[in-house]
Amino acid sequence: MPTNSSSPYLPFGENKNAAWYGKDIVSVKQFKREDLEYIFGVAHEMRGMVERVGTFDLLKGKILANLFYEPSTRTSSSFTAAMERLGGSVIPINEVKYSSVTKGETLTDTVRTLECYTDVIALRHPETGSAAIAAKVMKKPLINAGDGAGEHPTQALLDAFTIKAELEHFDGLTVTMLGDLKYGRTVHSLARLLSLFDVKLNYVSPDILKMPKEVVDEVGAKGIVQSEFSSLEKILPETDVLYVTRVQKERFENADDYEKVKGVYVINPDIMKSAKQKMIVMHPLPRVTEISMDFDDDPRAAYFRQMEYGLYVRMALLAMVLGKA
Amino acid sequence: MPTNSSSPYLPFGENKNAAWYGKDIVSVKQFKREDLEYIFGVAHEMRGMVERVGTFDLLKGKILANLFYEPSTRTSSSFTAAMERLGGSVIPINEVKYSSVTKGETLTDTVRTLECYTDVIALRHPETGSAAIAAKVMKKPLINAGDGAGEHPTQALLDAFTIKAELEHFDGLTVTMLGDLKYGRTVHSLARLLSLFDVKLNYVSPDILKMPKEVVDEVGAKGIVQSEFSSLEKILPETDVLYVTRVQKERFENADDYEKVKGVYVINPDIMKSAKQKMIVMHPLPRVTEISMDFDDDPRAAYFRQMEYGLYVRMALLAMVLGKA
Amino acid sequence: MPTNSSSPYLPFGENKNAAWYGKDIVSVKQFKREDLEYIFGVAHEMRGMVERVGTFDLLKGKILANLFYEPSTRTSSSFTAAMERLGGSVIPINEVKYSSVTKGETLTDTVRTLECYTDVIALRHPETGSAAIAAKVMKKPLINAGDGAGEHPTQALLDAFTIKAELEHFDGLTVTMLGDLKYGRTVHSLARLLSLFDVKLNYVSPDILKMPKEVVDEVGAKGIVQSEFSSLEKILPETDVLYVTRVQKERFENADDYEKVKGVYVINPDIMKSAKQKMIVMHPLPRVTEISMDFDDDPRAAYFRQMEYGLYVRMALLAMVLGKA
Repeated sequence: MPTNSSSPYLPFGENKNAAWYGKDIVSVKQFKREDLEYIFGVAHEMRGMVERVGTFDLLKGKILANLFYEPSTRTSSSFTAAMERLGGSVIPINEVKYSSVTKGETLTDTVRTLECYTDVIALRHPETGSAAIAAKVMKKPLINAGDGAGEHPTQALLDAFTIKAELEHFDGLTVTMLGDLKYGRTVHSLARLLSLFDVKLNYVSPDILKMPKEVVDEVGAKGIVQSEFSSLEKILPETDVLYVTRVQKERFENADDYEKVKGVYVINPDIMKSAKQKMIVMHPLPRVTEISMDFDDDPRAAYFRQMEYGLYVRMALLAMVLGKA
Repeated sequence: MPTNSSSPYLPFGENKNAAWYGKDIVSVKQFKREDLEYIFGVAHEMRGMVERVGTFDLLKGKILANLFYEPSTRTSSSFTAAMERLGGSVIPINEVKYSSVTKGETLTDTVRTLECYTDVIALRHPETGSAAIAAKVMKKPLINAGDGAGEHPTQALLDAFTIKAELEHFDGLTVTMLGDLKYGRTVHSLARLLSLFDVKLNYVSPDILKMPKEVVDEVGAKGIVQSEFSSLEKILPETDVLYVTRVQKERFENADDYEKVKGVYVINPDIMKSAKQKMIVMHPLPRVTEISMDFDDDPRAAYFRQMEYGLYVRMALLAMVLGKA
Repeated sequence: MPTNSSSPYLPFGENKNAAWYGKDIVSVKQFKREDLEYIFGVAHEMRGMVERVGTFDLLKGKILANLFYEPSTRTSSSFTAAMERLGGSVIPINEVKYSSVTKGETLTDTVRTLECYTDVIALRHPETGSAAIAAKVMKKPLINAGDGAGEHPTQALLDAFTIKAELEHFDGLTVTMLGDLKYGRTVHSLARLLSLFDVKLNYVSPDILKMPKEVVDEVGAKGIVQSEFSSLEKILPETDVLYVTRVQKERFENADDYEKVKGVYVINPDIMKSAKQKMIVMHPLPRVTEISMDFDDDPRAAYFRQMEYGLYVRMALLAMVLGKA
């Protein structure tokens, strides 16, 4: 919604003075350290309530439009579950062709139509910047559920909350990001978020898939120590958080280059022998071969718990923008 | 449902003596003036309740099957939101291929199956007459959500309710329909509904896209004054309701004819200078270029509010056929 | 879920000592006679409650993931309605391509992700054995909603419950299965379930579509009398349950063979003159021409009621595995 909107559509008993009431969640760049601490506090409460009672009617009567222009089971299901665990309802709109977009309607008309029926929209769209464009015309809050190569703020928040929930604090941690650091939007956003804390960042990637200079500069400007490596070996023992992403064959110009490096970026029980006992391995999922399935039962394998933390973070955000947290 | 059905499937505490209990909503032809007044009265109450409390449990425990054989985000979302705002649940069945129709099942078997699980069905189907055929075999109520070139009664009702809600009354109004009046099922149905009131109808269209004689005759038989024009200019100043529809290029045999007329049927702030201050511009959406986006913030631009009125009308109809209004 | 799981994900007030709490429903082979009697008892209670009050909040706060890798309107809608009539919520995941499976994710990763958000998963998958594989990695209960040529246990249970509900008992009944008995997974599973009771089974099919030896042997080992026929005529008068399946043209190597037999496997009012007055005709639906539509209003036509019994059976199973029955 526009900042100066008078919001005639948000009347039903919310706390309109709440700091996050009616706000959009569009980019990780909108968060300060204290914002993250607040979000994680609410997410922690959500976790406690889910564990105790499963579901509660905080958002009873509220409707989320889950507007997904491209498929994403995990993200879509997570938003749906978040709304349902808060007693709210969901209108799923799952596919471009199942949408008047096929009749030539613009994104802005679509969201202006949907906000006539609903209280909040989660938008997944293949084009960078689409979430900001949609938020601008909307009177009700929008949550960016991924806009192409752009942002996926709820993923970054759940990644950060996973670290907080599993290791209790950020300051002093060594976080190692592994794999395709060039195209992976999750590692870019996470690096940006973590730069609000006192962490040390290691980047391990093939030469052609390094963390982009733009991100390195931005993170560096916050005073964060960043180091680049082409293999994991040396730094795994000191790593508190290992964030794994997939190295895709098609990123390489010739297959030989890919064959040479691919083994370096696979996590398995053998490799993990040199890691600490108290550390976690994360992955945004889906994984293919970059984490071997026989590591899944290791207590350090946090990637499925990471999914669960995503539920709590999205519950928190929905409650916050609807004036109920 | 068949008129003389004994309805063994409708047992749960509804007011079975309510006039609309168990009825199908198939065609605008089934409504008399007093029916419209009743529906609009209930829709008005729904509006008040949504504005005060957002959602209420009038249809708690009821299930709507949203059976859409062709995509329509707006209509489908509107029915879903209507049911959810009344505390009910929805089973979305969105695509022909996601349906046993692909295994050769007939429409009648599909609706007879779905009514075993649900309390009411909203049907969108590409074939004219399909809603009437489905309603005939069903024991539970059916709401026609558009059957091809046939009817789309809830659209016509929401169009009429928009006029009522925005301008308070029908009698004495001048309603101007603009654009493709030949193929646009919404203008046919709306003209029929408005013929129950004391209105004046203007039709503005290219020569090849005039209002069909069948509709003109039917409306004329009710004593309504109808006039045809090829340009909007002269009659815009006296218009209370301007109903815009899209003129599609593909309706024209040669592109030149289209180029000649298309500019006449585009609404923008400049053209609207000659219109009254108290009047409304409507559009069934999606629009493409026929209403310029820089008119959207004009208070007379009623097309997004029109979407919202659709929610109230569908809430009213669902409550009525389920014996709760 | 694995039998020896400590299930950290199932904490919310269920009766964890209930016999079915946390169990998977994967195969008809897992049921003993007393299990069926228990399930049918719960399904009978569900029926009574639906008839009295429509919906009740037994599973309020619980979430079902309806994970369908192939379309099946009937089964998917039935699970959705079952969950909603118990006050629970559903996350629909309807199509393979709308799933990270298209990004290469394995079924096991998908279900492990979904169980982070939900309380139970209903899985429809084209590959035989997929349900067992998924259940093995899951901590929460899985219900097999059909795995290819494998099992479809809830269909078999609803078929058996239909017989129980319509004819009150199993023992002493003559059940005649008609049509394609070779490829029809429903008749295989039903024959297996019925072998737990004292029934007589007749198989009527074209020569090339006979009941597989494997099923006949298994059922015979329980002491059930089974007889094979190529026409219905002689045994229809003694039949208590006629279970009709479709004979598909494409099963035959040449069209003539199909033309020769097809008429023998069509049920119409004329043929049914020789049947008892107290008997039922069942069909898993969708039917095409194998039951003529002018038989639909005969009280013996139980195939739509069969759909309704499916609702009660699925309500029972959901309540049972979630520790609420």
